[in-house]
Amino acid sequence: MTTEPLRIAVVGLGTVGTGVVRLLQDHAGLIAGRGGRAIEIVAVSARDGGKKRGIDLTRYRWVDDPILLVQDRSIDAIVELVGGSGGVAGDLVRAALKAGKPVVTANKALLALHGFELAQLAESTGTPLLYEAAVAGGIPIIKTLREGLAGNEIRSVYGILNGTCNYILTEMRETGRNFADVLKAAQALGYAEADPAFDIEGTDAAHKLSILSALAFGHRPDFAQVRVTGITGIEASDILFAGELGYRIKLLGIAKRIDGKVVQRVEPCLVPAGSTMGAVDGVFNAVFVDSDFADRSLSMGRGAGERPTASSVVADLIDLARGRSQPVFGVAAAALTKAEKADEGAVIGAYYMRMTAIDRSGVLADISAILRDLKISVESVLQRGRDPGNPVSIVMTTHPVSHAAMTQAVGTLGKLDCMVEPPSVLRIEPF
Amino acid sequence: MTTEPLRIAVVGLGTVGTGVVRLLQDHAGLIAGRGGRAIEIVAVSARDGGKKRGIDLTRYRWVDDPILLVQDRSIDAIVELVGGSGGVAGDLVRAALKAGKPVVTANKALLALHGFELAQLAESTGTPLLYEAAVAGGIPIIKTLREGLAGNEIRSVYGILNGTCNYILTEMRETGRNFADVLKAAQALGYAEADPAFDIEGTDAAHKLSILSALAFGHRPDFAQVRVTGITGIEASDILFAGELGYRIKLLGIAKRIDGKVVQRVEPCLVPAGSTMGAVDGVFNAVFVDSDFADRSLSMGRGAGERPTASSVVADLIDLARGRSQPVFGVAAAALTKAEKADEGAVIGAYYMRMTAIDRSGVLADISAILRDLKISVESVLQRGRDPGNPVSIVMTTHPVSHAAMTQAVGTLGKLDCMVEPPSVLRIEPF
Repeated sequence: MTTEPLRIAVVGLGTVGTGVVRLLQDHAGLIAGRGGRAIEIVAVSARDGGKKRGIDLTRYRWVDDPILLVQDRSIDAIVELVGGSGGVAGDLVRAALKAGKPVVTANKALLALHGFELAQLAESTGTPLLYEAAVAGGIPIIKTLREGLAGNEIRSVYGILNGTCNYILTEMRETGRNFADVLKAAQALGYAEADPAFDIEGTDAAHKLSILSALAFGHRPDFAQVRVTGITGIEASDILFAGELGYRIKLLGIAKRIDGKVVQRVEPCLVPAGSTMGAVDGVFNAVFVDSDFADRSLSMGRGAGERPTASSVVADLIDLARGRSQPVFGVAAAALTKAEKADEGAVIGAYYMRMTAIDRSGVLADISAILRDLKISVESVLQRGRDPGNPVSIVMTTHPVSHAAMTQAVGTLGKLDCMVEPPSVLRIEPF
Repeated sequence: MTTEPLRIAVVGLGTVGTGVVRLLQDHAGLIAGRGGRAIEIVAVSARDGGKKRGIDLTRYRWVDDPILLVQDRSIDAIVELVGGSGGVAGDLVRAALKAGKPVVTANKALLALHGFELAQLAESTGTPLLYEAAVAGGIPIIKTLREGLAGNEIRSVYGILNGTCNYILTEMRETGRNFADVLKAAQALGYAEADPAFDIEGTDAAHKLSILSALAFGHRPDFAQVRVTGITGIEASDILFAGELGYRIKLLGIAKRIDGKVVQRVEPCLVPAGSTMGAVDGVFNAVFVDSDFADRSLSMGRGAGERPTASSVVADLIDLARGRSQPVFGVAAAALTKAEKADEGAVIGAYYMRMTAIDRSGVLADISAILRDLKISVESVLQRGRDPGNPVSIVMTTHPVSHAAMTQAVGTLGKLDCMVEPPSVLRIEPF
């Protein structure tokens, strides 16, 4: 085992890149002890060389074109923190893997969209590609799935994968304010991006879920198979109604194996307020893994931010320094199956449904008749106040029912004359 | 990288050993995929060759004296599941490491009491010694601390480390029954051993804590430094009073760095009923790690039992098969410091105190005066019913106070004429 330092280049000096430099500077001795040798930054690269970052970069070589690093023999590994599924990040990672230069990245979009191609490429040149920081910030969930639970057949992996959404939903609950207001406040605090679409529409969580699903079930990541619903449709009243019913609303990513096929979905769900999942608030992430020998296990922690994400990048670097390696998705690329999408229609679950209907006699009877005809049994009904002739909210929860029946019910209910808008429907997950 | 099978011997065929054999049989293909090669049981050894175990052992060579396996060239690694800090287990592990034969073990007592010696031995021959199953059953907490959070300076590691105690405390709360009754029921169900002392007196949790502390802080495991209090002194009334005050009682293991020194303690504590820790019930374990970059993270899952523990043993075997290795306690043995025991006296915390005193006028005034003189501020007082001239329970909780002041208060209070027995004191942990 070599005791030469592991010499790295850090490409991308945004929040995470800055954190990685800071961590490597702060804990140089500790990291050398745990990695068996020093980890030395040799070069850095970013778009904006003049930006103030609050860290000392003078010791490192500044490189304008990061692609040049790939052929640089003074560099043992490249840390890609540019982000994005294409552009510089994609070019750099591909070039590095082709050239046999190990890569550590936090790039969930790249892995979710091009993971299989990259796994094949990495394997063809025997080059490590590590990405602990791509999912759930400071939580070592990649390592847990790929190594810690490697003896198990995984049944499902699910959890809260986006800190921004969880922060917004938590704030909505705690303050009673609506989505738009809370989003604005979150942006002011730096908890949401200026362009928040990626987070609030569920794309970020879906990227992460497709990586977790690939690791859990041994299939090629297939982002297109993830059914994605964001949190933009959640109204203050939904949070309130859910609370009255004993639930909290969480944006969940759920990947589940059904008869050898896989369902992958990201959507806001109701979870019991008193459950472990229900208690995960603010920017925290939580990932549950259900497996046949270890049973149910949970990893929870900070899901984003400079320092937690840097912690995961450096964990990968320490693995590299120690020479620990593994296939990108835990098994040989050739063994990764093509994910088959399971039919969700047969999936059984309970639902929450909020309808906005004109308040007139017979409305509840009409709704009830439709549900009865589809054999959907209602668990509870909430209706606040009366306002004859005007729209009012009617909230119902159902007993477990098939996804197909529920879809049909929603379609039929939406066509009722009294309905002002299509019913808003959320799954109730019994975690 | 070799594609030859990893050939192993399983020594000890109790609950865990049986589980390991079953897991390797059930998931042979999956494990070969994740390990990069097959993991094959070649030989087995146990005290009782005739015992029915519900698994097919006919394919394996039966060995009466496991020490002979050490020199057996047809065996690549030994899985030690005999247990105990001395005897066969210790002899076997030492002989194997000396001979350069990798060892996977679930033996917490051996690691806690002889970990440093074994780490030196393993390092001197360059032989892997893996023990994921030694702490918290199916939760990969060793890997998480040693690798996943390796970039961090750890501030503390703490949690529920013994499933038997947590089961008993949960049952006491849910049924209102006393300790002895619940213990008996737990034994009948197999959740507690026939000789339960190891669990209920806190020794098992202390073994695990000393391993976690060594990994977290880079010191030699030093079991003797762990201050241990079990759960045998917990009365049904404590659970009840704690509940009324909004707390639950949990047996916690806590290792914390204070000014470069370390406090290691195992003791029943009050934790808020609504906290994540408070919600960990039954046989589940939960380990929190507080670190400077990842911040607070939690790993939770089944802490014991055939299948979860087998999951961790097999994870280690997959690491071995892949050739992934690391020093026994995360850094070179020579770098492990001698743990220095921090002075607990200055540690600040709130306390719960149950006193049994003769019900007569002036008692509360006497108690209050003693606390006032030590500047201990009382947060709440509970006293149920009156029984003049006879013993009654008085429960108090304090605001944060130094451990030293509290120790002094307990000593002085115990000497009051009215006290029937020494006050029973529990720390309140704000997790």
